[in-house]
Amino acid sequence: MKPMKYYILFFLFLITFGVSAQKNKMPYKDASLSIEERVNDLLPRLSLEEKVAQMRIFHANIGVKSDEKGNMELSDRVIEKLKLGIAGIKNPGEHISPLAAAKLNNELQKYIIENNRWGIPAMFVTESYNGVDAEGCTKFGRPITSAASFNPDLVRRVWDVVGKEARLRGMHMCHSPEADLVRDPRFGRMSEAFGEDTYLTTQMVVNAIKGVQGNYEGLGNGTHIGAVAKHFAGYGQVLGGSNFAAIEISPRTLIDEIYPPFEAAVKEARTLGIMASHGDLNGIASHGNPELLTGILRDQWGFDGYVVSDSNDIARLYYFMKVAESPEAAALLGLTAGIDIDLYAEDSYAYLPEMVKKDPSIEKMIDRSVKRVLRTKMILGLFDNPYVNIKKVEKEVRSQASLSLAQEADLESIILLKNEANTLPLQKGTQKIALLGPLLNEGTKEAFESVAGNKVTFTADKGFELTDQNTGVPQLLETSDSTIDKMVGMAKEADVTILFLGGDEFTSKEAFFNNALGDRASIDPVGAQDELIEKIKGLGKTVIVVLKHRRTLSINTIADKADAILDGWDLSELGDSSLARIIFGEVSPSGKSPVTVPRSIGQIPFHYSMKEINYKKGYLFLEDGPLYPFGHGLSYSQFEYGDLKISNDMITPNTELTVSTTITNIGKMKAKEVVQMYIKDDIGSVTRPDKELKGFKKIELSPGESKKVSFTITPRMLEFTGLTMDKILETGDYTIMIGTSSQDVKTTKFRLEK
Amino acid sequence: MKPMKYYILFFLFLITFGVSAQKNKMPYKDASLSIEERVNDLLPRLSLEEKVAQMRIFHANIGVKSDEKGNMELSDRVIEKLKLGIAGIKNPGEHISPLAAAKLNNELQKYIIENNRWGIPAMFVTESYNGVDAEGCTKFGRPITSAASFNPDLVRRVWDVVGKEARLRGMHMCHSPEADLVRDPRFGRMSEAFGEDTYLTTQMVVNAIKGVQGNYEGLGNGTHIGAVAKHFAGYGQVLGGSNFAAIEISPRTLIDEIYPPFEAAVKEARTLGIMASHGDLNGIASHGNPELLTGILRDQWGFDGYVVSDSNDIARLYYFMKVAESPEAAALLGLTAGIDIDLYAEDSYAYLPEMVKKDPSIEKMIDRSVKRVLRTKMILGLFDNPYVNIKKVEKEVRSQASLSLAQEADLESIILLKNEANTLPLQKGTQKIALLGPLLNEGTKEAFESVAGNKVTFTADKGFELTDQNTGVPQLLETSDSTIDKMVGMAKEADVTILFLGGDEFTSKEAFFNNALGDRASIDPVGAQDELIEKIKGLGKTVIVVLKHRRTLSINTIADKADAILDGWDLSELGDSSLARIIFGEVSPSGKSPVTVPRSIGQIPFHYSMKEINYKKGYLFLEDGPLYPFGHGLSYSQFEYGDLKISNDMITPNTELTVSTTITNIGKMKAKEVVQMYIKDDIGSVTRPDKELKGFKKIELSPGESKKVSFTITPRMLEFTGLTMDKILETGDYTIMIGTSSQDVKTTKFRLEK
Repeated sequence: MKPMKYYILFFLFLITFGVSAQKNKMPYKDASLSIEERVNDLLPRLSLEEKVAQMRIFHANIGVKSDEKGNMELSDRVIEKLKLGIAGIKNPGEHISPLAAAKLNNELQKYIIENNRWGIPAMFVTESYNGVDAEGCTKFGRPITSAASFNPDLVRRVWDVVGKEARLRGMHMCHSPEADLVRDPRFGRMSEAFGEDTYLTTQMVVNAIKGVQGNYEGLGNGTHIGAVAKHFAGYGQVLGGSNFAAIEISPRTLIDEIYPPFEAAVKEARTLGIMASHGDLNGIASHGNPELLTGILRDQWGFDGYVVSDSNDIARLYYFMKVAESPEAAALLGLTAGIDIDLYAEDSYAYLPEMVKKDPSIEKMIDRSVKRVLRTKMILGLFDNPYVNIKKVEKEVRSQASLSLAQEADLESIILLKNEANTLPLQKGTQKIALLGPLLNEGTKEAFESVAGNKVTFTADKGFELTDQNTGVPQLLETSDSTIDKMVGMAKEADVTILFLGGDEFTSKEAFFNNALGDRASIDPVGAQDELIEKIKGLGKTVIVVLKHRRTLSINTIADKADAILDGWDLSELGDSSLARIIFGEVSPSGKSPVTVPRSIGQIPFHYSMKEINYKKGYLFLEDGPLYPFGHGLSYSQFEYGDLKISNDMITPNTELTVSTTITNIGKMKAKEVVQMYIKDDIGSVTRPDKELKGFKKIELSPGESKKVSFTITPRMLEFTGLTMDKILETGDYTIMIGTSSQDVKTTKFRLEK
Repeated sequence: MKPMKYYILFFLFLITFGVSAQKNKMPYKDASLSIEERVNDLLPRLSLEEKVAQMRIFHANIGVKSDEKGNMELSDRVIEKLKLGIAGIKNPGEHISPLAAAKLNNELQKYIIENNRWGIPAMFVTESYNGVDAEGCTKFGRPITSAASFNPDLVRRVWDVVGKEARLRGMHMCHSPEADLVRDPRFGRMSEAFGEDTYLTTQMVVNAIKGVQGNYEGLGNGTHIGAVAKHFAGYGQVLGGSNFAAIEISPRTLIDEIYPPFEAAVKEARTLGIMASHGDLNGIASHGNPELLTGILRDQWGFDGYVVSDSNDIARLYYFMKVAESPEAAALLGLTAGIDIDLYAEDSYAYLPEMVKKDPSIEKMIDRSVKRVLRTKMILGLFDNPYVNIKKVEKEVRSQASLSLAQEADLESIILLKNEANTLPLQKGTQKIALLGPLLNEGTKEAFESVAGNKVTFTADKGFELTDQNTGVPQLLETSDSTIDKMVGMAKEADVTILFLGGDEFTSKEAFFNNALGDRASIDPVGAQDELIEKIKGLGKTVIVVLKHRRTLSINTIADKADAILDGWDLSELGDSSLARIIFGEVSPSGKSPVTVPRSIGQIPFHYSMKEINYKKGYLFLEDGPLYPFGHGLSYSQFEYGDLKISNDMITPNTELTVSTTITNIGKMKAKEVVQMYIKDDIGSVTRPDKELKGFKKIELSPGESKKVSFTITPRMLEFTGLTMDKILETGDYTIMIGTSSQDVKTTKFRLEK
């Protein structure tokens, strides 16, 4: 080696050393240091205004624009905001292709890093209840649909895809999943959550978070995104099912039924974020509730991520909830309670710098929140690895594998509510089928044709729409006799009619103000749907109903008239194909209802796990019990449950026991079955639920095949909040129920002794 | 005077002295001693079995029989029971005349006194929500009806008659009034309470108790009876409006809204008894809740009467609520919680003597309860004055004055919900009126004829029944077209039709088990009632509707079609005469709705005093707001409210202020008006009600007359349960609203400063 080369090497060394030296001036940029060290280095460098900027998220619609290729254009307002840095931006590039979004978000991130003093990257945030809520991503079924699969592993795989697709678009966090229990079908958002049950919801939420976050320790690798479990707490319990209404829950119910999915989201799934609830929980606005957001969430459960407000909800403490005398007081209330990030509001945490001038003591709370945000950005790898690898986007987003997974999820989620005289499955032999009804989609006929083969001929007519959406507030539409007559005529020409009924997207949606309604006071199917099925059934031919809907519907007439009912809730983008595959018997349905279906809204509250005393009597002039119980769902095959075997009829606080049964497919088709295990505490110091789901397993059996399914009963499953509000374990008798629905079970008993 | 006479006098003196001496051996029989002294003397004399007998009430139907003249016959079972004495007997002589009942009860009391070792008399107990629940007493309107009067003094006078009539029959206690709030119209017992509002219910309960108890200090004089306020606590809030279901109320709502009528019953009205609620309150069975029955009731409020179980509810802790492992455990739970008297159960407190043998420590709790019972009997004068003065019974029970009072109460309670184009009152001029509909009574036509005079001719036809009561569970009846046609034909012949609609007694009643249903899942009027009014209205003639019902009904079609609606709820035995007097304008209606009337059961919970956030938005496909708001009720006259005047726009914790307005009768008729005063706390540390009734005054004005009505605002009215669950008073702005209903008000503001 020539001396010159040594000089060059030395020069390179100097450059390298110099850069390293410069890096060493900025330990927070040093990936070899711990996150704690890096955050502790960075925080004191920030001005008060820069700190507060790390506590705010704005929506991209205020001025992050791009062309369809993702070339960025920023409004002056956004440019001004970004000078101080920003915690995050909601939905940048949501309406452009994944590739364009990835480009835009790389460009936007670069701009942000380069235009705030410390080069702090931002989190880009999306929503993802049925896939990434953005153009070009795989559309999966909604959470309540996937809950019906009773297959947490499947949910995890779905959310794994969601996490990957989101990150490939350049997103870093999603304001999902919902860990709320939805027990009031009037509530317009019920399809966004996983149903009425604490245990089922907990399993689904944990797997959704683990899926979307991938390997928690590997979040910095940039393959997945962070989850924000919401809405903490009790949001599904709004009075009257009315969005933004008050929430009233007894403290024991709150602890035993509402909190567990959140607790598991924190402890088991390690969610990066938690979103507070719009709600006023027992008189205390959740956004101003330190007991909830700090006492329970952090002190009890050890949550170390950030808490984000729901849209504008800190400001709402003042102008809406009226628990703060001014916007500043609202900001202080939110900050004190433990809200780290103010979503959207212009007039709330924006006041914090001024407020610190008047009362310097509050800067400590600001520091606390900023640390949490910076820490999250470190966990997400944004300081070290802020950009998306554009090359992978087109290949990996909405891939064939993802679409197949979407259909796989559909196939496990569709619920066979009724199947009179084995109406389903249909054979692919020569026949004419009429596809009719307001929930028919554009592509339904093609989807059915491609599954059914060429012996089956289809006619299709939507017939009528349920709602007029051009009037601001959706209005119900009248349906003329001639429309119905035409549809009946088509049914008459066919051998079989498949009716697509339920509710369109305007009959159940998130309700806002300004007349953007979405909650209903009735859960009867709207419009001429009952009339349609009555008239078509009057023809005396086979009528199959496919339900598509986003809230529980009291389908009394449909349940009476249909020969078979498949309940799809809200399936993936391949939903019609999935339905056709089920209808023509390629797969047996194996979904189970994640909610109790009431006969009337007048029966609510009406979930299966209420106290026994709630079911002791019914109402005048109404058939008793639910239309369909929780966990109900038929199969094309048939399963026989053997008597339950228990490893020991006694359990102690330090032992476990096993209960098992053998399930045999005594039908003619390979099929999956959800084996459900419920427990009842026969006598308690407080009144106990009639039964509680405490385990389930989805198995697949060929005709004639048997499988033994075992559940381990642990003392922890038997704990509840006792008279003194502590978690307790009580001696006494317990009943175990295992079966195919919450109402069709075999039972055995054991005793807990201390 | 001759010596012989002195001897006789001396002899008499000796006899007297001897008797006195014997009396002095039994200080508990000495009326000159204090009640405390007497009870403390008596209690230690009792055997354990005798003590426990003082903690039980049995129902007369197990064997207290009599002929119609009141000649007593006791079953062996009753004779056996009475040997130990008894706390009380429910409903002896309920089916015989007041005079016969008085005779029977005198004979029964004498038997009891003479057949237990210590001569302890028994309490005879009745129910009295609309008058003494027994043959031959004045039947007043039901509590919810009288609540509509908004006239507490009237309620006091009514219950004064109830107390007197009951005592004259030989009764001593009534298991009334209900201090529950009824906010769920599905609940079959809603007519037994005073409506949805805390303040209105409190006023009515206090006056009912003061009325029925007369002068508390004079209870020993034997003119009135003791009250038992019930059902403590939260019974009206059963989930789903379903009797015996669980109750879920947030602790703050419980304190601020549910407890006040009970607290006032104890502190202000000095009720002798409290009955516990069937319910499981937030997971704790009320009958086993020491915090409720002892902590709040006795320690906080200072209650010194007795607590009685609801029927069989101590035993139900075991077999129904399942919070006790055995009947004995249930008895211990009830005893420990603070239930002094076990109503009816054969298998509950009956175990106490055996239980004491095993655990002597519980005798202290038995002593505590027995003291309370004995003390009550002393207060009622039963040891000194156990018998009824038979001579007064026939003259004073169901006297003309009492019947007049029943009608007076009706006239103030009937609510004019609608009066299109001053349809009402009708003139007594020549016209034909058809009285039609399923709520028509036997005597309706005669009652109307006697009021209307001889120029008005009436036809009357009930037409159809709503329910078939011969089937065990009431079933709805179909109505034939010909029946409706006949009724329409009658309406066609008439100038005016008065339709008697609503619900019969079988569509709303206390629900038990064994298929004795009484709650409904819908609040729509049943049967052909809507069809009837639609067809009759189709004739184009005047249609007036009289509503008779025991639950709130969503009378959408009736509200739309009727020209005028008078809502009578459930009036006195003179109800039809009262209605006729209103209809023909002898008196202007002045009742106000004691509940919010929803358009649909799907709107509940829907009382006027919920938090503002509950009213921010409505439901899809449903008109916003209630059908009729709380406090609504029209008049034949018209009232103008002047602007509000406030004595000071600032209040402190130690000052009061006065708000006043002048109301002018600008109509043409002398009429009464209920001036309602609501307060809103504009901003609170917890979310505050949209408004709360805090005062009302019923005034009478002649045409053109004005009256100034003033309300004193005290700091106590502004207290609420704050974040720390203490009662607090907060600085800030308050809005006062005064008006003719909860939605038609004038407003002013004041500020609280400390």
